Amino acid sequence: MNTNTGPTVAVVGATGAVGSVMIDIMNQRETVPWGEIRLIASPRSAGKKITVRGVERTVVELSPEAFEGVDIAMFDVPDELSERWAPVAVDCGAIAVDNSGAFRMNPEVPLVVPEVNAAKVHERPKGIIANPNCTTLSMMTALGALHQEFGLRELVVSSYQAASGSGQEGVDRLRDEISAVAGKEVGERSGDVAEALTAAGVPEETPFKAPLALNVVPWAGSRKEDGWTSEELKVRNESRKILGLSELKVSATCVRVPVVTTHSLAVHATFENEVGVERAHQVLEAAPSIAVHDDPEQQVFPTPAEVVGQDRTYVGRVRQALDFPNTLEFFVCGDNLRKGAALNTYEIAETLAQG
Amino acid sequence: MNTNTGPTVAVVGATGAVGSVMIDIMNQRETVPWGEIRLIASPRSAGKKITVRGVERTVVELSPEAFEGVDIAMFDVPDELSERWAPVAVDCGAIAVDNSGAFRMNPEVPLVVPEVNAAKVHERPKGIIANPNCTTLSMMTALGALHQEFGLRELVVSSYQAASGSGQEGVDRLRDEISAVAGKEVGERSGDVAEALTAAGVPEETPFKAPLALNVVPWAGSRKEDGWTSEELKVRNESRKILGLSELKVSATCVRVPVVTTHSLAVHATFENEVGVERAHQVLEAAPSIAVHDDPEQQVFPTPAEVVGQDRTYVGRVRQALDFPNTLEFFVCGDNLRKGAALNTYEIAETLAQG
Repeated sequence: MNTNTGPTVAVVGATGAVGSVMIDIMNQRETVPWGEIRLIASPRSAGKKITVRGVERTVVELSPEAFEGVDIAMFDVPDELSERWAPVAVDCGAIAVDNSGAFRMNPEVPLVVPEVNAAKVHERPKGIIANPNCTTLSMMTALGALHQEFGLRELVVSSYQAASGSGQEGVDRLRDEISAVAGKEVGERSGDVAEALTAAGVPEETPFKAPLALNVVPWAGSRKEDGWTSEELKVRNESRKILGLSELKVSATCVRVPVVTTHSLAVHATFENEVGVERAHQVLEAAPSIAVHDDPEQQVFPTPAEVVGQDRTYVGRVRQALDFPNTLEFFVCGDNLRKGAALNTYEIAETLAQG
Repeated sequence: MNTNTGPTVAVVGATGAVGSVMIDIMNQRETVPWGEIRLIASPRSAGKKITVRGVERTVVELSPEAFEGVDIAMFDVPDELSERWAPVAVDCGAIAVDNSGAFRMNPEVPLVVPEVNAAKVHERPKGIIANPNCTTLSMMTALGALHQEFGLRELVVSSYQAASGSGQEGVDRLRDEISAVAGKEVGERSGDVAEALTAAGVPEETPFKAPLALNVVPWAGSRKEDGWTSEELKVRNESRKILGLSELKVSATCVRVPVVTTHSLAVHATFENEVGVERAHQVLEAAPSIAVHDDPEQQVFPTPAEVVGQDRTYVGRVRQALDFPNTLEFFVCGDNLRKGAALNTYEIAETLAQG
């Protein structure tokens, strides 16, 4: 690394939803390993001042020059911008840690969750390390810990995904819809939620394909072959790659729910070895990045509204399947903007800084 | 049956949420087979006038005399009232069709979904026929049709259950919570949904154990052994009984979502025989009580807000599992107050009236 005081880190997309959380995380850390912290964004945001760790910094425009002297560049920008600019950062000598979908399934790019496969950060022939999709990430630390103990073989998951998975646009849309239906007796007959939105002047075009207030929408991402969505295939393919289980059986159904932030998943996981709830609790509790909230007697379980803003993944409702051997059921909640995006990207960068 | 013009039917719990829907259904039917229609409710509601099929009728108080001359008594009252009064109705000569949980798993009581096992209405040594739980019912016509074609073996389901599954109290609670969070920037950090409810004066006590607005709650029903909820075990045990598959493997996770009415389920169903999406569509489309809303190209899929008030079960997102042989994934929505409760009870009574 090229400074005496520590490597230079850049946040690319510093003014976006996830970039802002990356800056929050840097501000919340007791110490950071960085010499210089550089903020990079689109020309529109260039010149903006943001205080990071007590120092006001000026956002610079995305350009080849912006990467000069950068050791680690954390990208949170749309796929096509990552595709174009991550190689530029690498050409300038940086390691790119990318949170877009552009490189995740590239065999020359490691897909890293530090708790699961930290060593992979050193195998990066392209100089790029990818950060997984937020839905996959929300369950991955829990699955990684259980896999190490029991040996994962099969996964059936249903998601309860938050609006902020569609960015600030999604959050704004959900808030507008909630305001439009509040105080009205809707949701009791077909069409009246949609009618209430129209009556309140909420535009027809929505990132969610259907009303999200007082509704759930079994569609997330784009259309892929045979009726699958991109989100469902990401859960399958990224889980396989992160866990190093190319034959892992996975079926996912991804559903958007009217929650602002924090993705939840109902997981049915079948293992090679015999499982037990008590042992699963021990394994999960031993993982620093997991919080077990699970006491059926006291009706303690995690819900997304409680978990938002937390770094840890919350696990509860752990049960041994009654009819499926070696199978655990559990419910997991993870903040999709923190561990699901900014935090994991930042932790990859920290792992790199540790050398 | 004891009249010239048709059997006498009674609605027990006529002023409740489900009883009211039973009356709606009777009003919406082109013809009804009934001679007399009698409305029975608690002393508090006795004397109330309700118009059914153009005739104003007076609600009578639940008592042994109320069942005199009744041929079919449709019950929607709490478990303990059904337990006490269904045998009274039977002693008075009626057949009791009961929508409580009191008799569902009694081996001498058939558990009936007419599309699946109508013939069972004639095997009723106790004079009682049970109506399944609303969550099970919401997927049962679809599962019954697919089972007949492919032979069901395994079921992994996650539910997205509506507030009205907890009755009018649940609906009112959700509406109060939605009003309390509307227009506020909450759901972005831990605890702030709960704080917004408190600030708005929404009482702490809730039928949902946790905030439901801008949240999902992985708990429905009461606590059973080994971390399971009553709702999850009902899905397992009732599915087995209705389908006549005592060895059916079932795992369910039941989750409450901020939807007013209509339960949805993500279903992973494994069959004895080879499956295909096209054949599944044909089988489902051939069932009069099922609507297939499934066109990924046009992003057509069912959502609960559209399905509420509909008699049919809506099925979409039908996919062949990529890694599990003979397995279909699908998303199903059913109005929990109609087919999930009042409509199925009424259809059982109609089946009986047909003799």
